[in-house]
Amino acid sequence: MVSQPKRPTSQPIVLTSHPTRFGPKPDALEWGSANPTKRGPIVGTVTTPAHRNVIGTHSGSYAVYRALAIASGKLDANHRADLTNTSPAARIGPYPAWSDPDKIVSLDPFGAIVGEVYTKFYEKGYDIRPTIAITKAHINMPELQDAVSKGRLQEDGQIMKKGGDLVVTKAAIEPVWYLPGLAKRLSVDESILRRTLFEQTGGMFPELVTRPDLKIFLPPIGGMTVYIVGDPDAIADPQKSLTVRVHDECNGSDVFGSDICTCRPYLVHGIEECIRTAQAGGAGVIVYFRKEGRALGEVTKFLVYNARKRQAGGDRADAYFARTECVAGVQDMRFQELMPDVLHWLGITRIDRFISMSDMKHDAVTDSGIEIIERVPIPDELIPADARVEIEAKKAAGYYTKADVLTEEELAAIQGRGLE
Amino acid sequence: MVSQPKRPTSQPIVLTSHPTRFGPKPDALEWGSANPTKRGPIVGTVTTPAHRNVIGTHSGSYAVYRALAIASGKLDANHRADLTNTSPAARIGPYPAWSDPDKIVSLDPFGAIVGEVYTKFYEKGYDIRPTIAITKAHINMPELQDAVSKGRLQEDGQIMKKGGDLVVTKAAIEPVWYLPGLAKRLSVDESILRRTLFEQTGGMFPELVTRPDLKIFLPPIGGMTVYIVGDPDAIADPQKSLTVRVHDECNGSDVFGSDICTCRPYLVHGIEECIRTAQAGGAGVIVYFRKEGRALGEVTKFLVYNARKRQAGGDRADAYFARTECVAGVQDMRFQELMPDVLHWLGITRIDRFISMSDMKHDAVTDSGIEIIERVPIPDELIPADARVEIEAKKAAGYYTKADVLTEEELAAIQGRGLE
Repeated sequence: MVSQPKRPTSQPIVLTSHPTRFGPKPDALEWGSANPTKRGPIVGTVTTPAHRNVIGTHSGSYAVYRALAIASGKLDANHRADLTNTSPAARIGPYPAWSDPDKIVSLDPFGAIVGEVYTKFYEKGYDIRPTIAITKAHINMPELQDAVSKGRLQEDGQIMKKGGDLVVTKAAIEPVWYLPGLAKRLSVDESILRRTLFEQTGGMFPELVTRPDLKIFLPPIGGMTVYIVGDPDAIADPQKSLTVRVHDECNGSDVFGSDICTCRPYLVHGIEECIRTAQAGGAGVIVYFRKEGRALGEVTKFLVYNARKRQAGGDRADAYFARTECVAGVQDMRFQELMPDVLHWLGITRIDRFISMSDMKHDAVTDSGIEIIERVPIPDELIPADARVEIEAKKAAGYYTKADVLTEEELAAIQGRGLE
Repeated sequence: MVSQPKRPTSQPIVLTSHPTRFGPKPDALEWGSANPTKRGPIVGTVTTPAHRNVIGTHSGSYAVYRALAIASGKLDANHRADLTNTSPAARIGPYPAWSDPDKIVSLDPFGAIVGEVYTKFYEKGYDIRPTIAITKAHINMPELQDAVSKGRLQEDGQIMKKGGDLVVTKAAIEPVWYLPGLAKRLSVDESILRRTLFEQTGGMFPELVTRPDLKIFLPPIGGMTVYIVGDPDAIADPQKSLTVRVHDECNGSDVFGSDICTCRPYLVHGIEECIRTAQAGGAGVIVYFRKEGRALGEVTKFLVYNARKRQAGGDRADAYFARTECVAGVQDMRFQELMPDVLHWLGITRIDRFISMSDMKHDAVTDSGIEIIERVPIPDELIPADARVEIEAKKAAGYYTKADVLTEEELAAIQGRGLE
């Protein structure tokens, strides 16, 4: 038998549905304040329940694994992170958007520098966890090596080192949702948002409906990773050129190179464009969002693949979106409305080259007040044969393209492989 | 303004903490029964609360996005998936392990074939969702093309087609946790497991403690994807050879090729080995688990990277595990104890070549009753220079290797790059 976790098991279970039983009033937060102390720290750890001022806890989904570790006696419930030497490897901000309560509603702009701006709270015993971590890395992708060998990219010894090693600054970001701001962004009443989040998840976090005083929700979902090529300070410098791709996870293509979509080829093309911009004195930014299968998840995605390939007439561009809607009820669940927050966190006000054909992404970015100068479609030669169905369907639906959009008849003629 | 969701808003909010207010008694489940009707369907949708017999809902984390779609009026709360043409593209099982309540506790073995085995429930109006989807794909990775051009792999026109296109059968699997079985597997009392899952997630799902009659939990975490190379029927055939790699997600390496670890190189090596086994008449299986950064998440991972590279003496193999433990309280949170479930779902009883050096993975697999004939370490030439720290630290900690384990002095001398 493993040892049992060190925690006061004799204490009664405190359900979270009744404020009076939950503990003292949480520290007030002034979302959007430029002063981090006035804004207040996000306290999501469960080591000191009395200090908590959020719904949910840290690490997104991985909180569930943490609970397993405590239940099985492998982790002390009272463990506090020793944050020695973990501070950001590069400075991001603060930028003006950090103090605009409407520009950023789905992450904590101070999330990387809590160790610096909340020292007084730490002294008082608060267990404040970073929700953003910034490090540096060297990355190497076979396609970039190929671009070097073909002369499309040059090694410069600084941004791209010998052997195609690309030097990047990267940031991992956990979602921190300010519910009033999120409701405003999605044009929905906050109480309806809270109630629906509770009911439609099968009853996750009753506090969503019982604790309107708690304005912050740390949802158990994946976050995002930012890859910066070139000098991070160049990102927000209007004198410097900026290339950006916001990429939504597609494990089947990004990792395994499935030929049914353009995800990895477009991602790699985005990185290539970022390198060129950085080498010319600007910067490049890739944001990788954990939104597998348009945020429908991979089970739904594979069900849709089967339905597409088996439908009468086979997999074809003119029926591309319909099959997703049959299974999922919507074509897409990515909520690009929330996506620009990370760009505002980075201080972006203008994007010179936006490596995306998505209308939804484009409109979300420009609606949030960021200018886009040029949109860069995926080069034709990078589209896998079976992915023609996807790309032509998207172009016909309004995605950006420099080429002609196909007629309905032509669209129906774009056929993918069967289930073989 | 967007339109409001179509749902009966006049109904009172039903908190889930009190069984009597929750509705009728759920259909009983007999976990581990070979008869799917006796076992009973997993009903996790929220369209018909009275039919639900689980805690949580479908799609893992993505249920949160679904809730956003309903709150913002984009998805009808009553939408039911049209599952026409979505049934599995290949048959898996049933296998003897499906009817052993101890062999599989973290997924639903019938999850892919609900449309076939629960027709009577569908007729009665049950909204049963597949938790597993099986499709076919062609994948193409630059490293595999390179292996072909170097003569390490051959195109055969069937398993590997022209241009290095690899034909695979793949399955996406959502976690379905049978809580009594999970507790037993982790050697913890079920009530402690439930209470800790509730408390340590910040109060997610009070039903974990208030509804001991609900035995199934659909946790809001990522699941896994199975890639099968060769004939799926060969997997469970003791006359055929089988190669397996169970791989835990590492986005920084798997997608972006970070040189600090061996994740993508080892994954690709695993696929290469799977191809060779399949071409010789056997089968290969890769299981990709969504357990980023040892299930600690990417923010923790990047904090640890900074601490490793900044510590006195620099990033070195002899201090590799200590830095993770400082930040996270444990070295690892992946719970490999649950990992073999998917192998049992696939009918595996013997693995001829296990592409992993991990003792934790090896022991979990063999403890679950699966024989491992040979363990295959990562070829030396595939280890990136900066990843020496990781691999030597792991070998010294007991990971499998054919080479000599380094002395403490040698270990301290294995140094990685600083934060540059």
